[in-house]
Amino acid sequence: MDYYSSQISNLIEELSSLPGIGSKSAQRLAFHILNMPIEHVEKLSSVIVEARKKVRYCQSCFTLTDDELCPICKNAGRNHKMIMVVENTRDLAAYEKTNKYEGVYHVLHGAISPMLGIGPNDIRLKELMQRLQEDVDEVIIATNSSLEGETTAMYISKLIKPTGIKVSRIASGVPVGGDLEYIDEMTLLRALEGRTEL
Amino acid sequence: MDYYSSQISNLIEELSSLPGIGSKSAQRLAFHILNMPIEHVEKLSSVIVEARKKVRYCQSCFTLTDDELCPICKNAGRNHKMIMVVENTRDLAAYEKTNKYEGVYHVLHGAISPMLGIGPNDIRLKELMQRLQEDVDEVIIATNSSLEGETTAMYISKLIKPTGIKVSRIASGVPVGGDLEYIDEMTLLRALEGRTEL
Repeated sequence: MDYYSSQISNLIEELSSLPGIGSKSAQRLAFHILNMPIEHVEKLSSVIVEARKKVRYCQSCFTLTDDELCPICKNAGRNHKMIMVVENTRDLAAYEKTNKYEGVYHVLHGAISPMLGIGPNDIRLKELMQRLQEDVDEVIIATNSSLEGETTAMYISKLIKPTGIKVSRIASGVPVGGDLEYIDEMTLLRALEGRTEL
Repeated sequence: MDYYSSQISNLIEELSSLPGIGSKSAQRLAFHILNMPIEHVEKLSSVIVEARKKVRYCQSCFTLTDDELCPICKNAGRNHKMIMVVENTRDLAAYEKTNKYEGVYHVLHGAISPMLGIGPNDIRLKELMQRLQEDVDEVIIATNSSLEGETTAMYISKLIKPTGIKVSRIASGVPVGGDLEYIDEMTLLRALEGRTEL
């Protein structure tokens, strides 16, 4: 990239190291930033560093937050006896957007994956088991519907069953509005297995 | 986004204000950044601010660079008597990637657009005309093949013709590897008009 000066090349290179940003997007972003008012660029840059510096794990559910407890764990209006287990903070956010779930969460920060060498001790499982010492009615496992997510769900349910606490798994099936014709066979089979009586 | 703490919401908001970054990408980027080592985040942030602070216009061709003259204008090996006029620095980079163009450039930073209220004085046209006082053999107009780009090309060619300097326009037609079946009619007509004898 010797047609760009070094500062511009550095910027493009840094931006293209971010996920989902290819070299074309990185160029477009870079020139957008270079044309932004300097005050706005400084704000963007400080928001990035501040967020990274302040962020930490919620001491209860381990979601990323900037206080000892996250807004959900602090909320006395939520049902703290119902814990939904998710792989990461984005999945938590996805369920929060439904505005229907009233329990709390537990963020594993990953899923068990023998392929990638990620075992039960590499995710926040021990911390989940610790939380179950308190008064908990149900653990809802909402890991992804992938091989790793399913493996993790199975592993967790086996760990929890002996404690007598109810364990459930979110349903897997045809997405709402989904056209059967375009849905993969695994999903169709899951939807069949998980059929409910009407 | 009250399920995210304020620092995280701020970060997502800042990122989604960038072009081509929707709310999903902004979330993914944000969590990627929050999981990056702090030193890397500080580097990213300083590269952004440094590039913005150092960037300025090349005093000859007006591309974005970090010195008085850009690497191309400084290069004595280039043909300084041939000037390619482009709309922005990204277009310059696109031609540089061909590795075949040996002349220099002139970056307009926009195109004439009566719709958007952008007139000849809002782009670097006066600066182009000044450069033509020196010894120039040819001006190649490589503005985009859009309404604005064509308007700008017409305007520039009318300005330059009286000076006696050769003015040319890059060809417009079917892209290499393009299948006629999928190409819009305007392009097909342009390709027909621009046909060359074999």
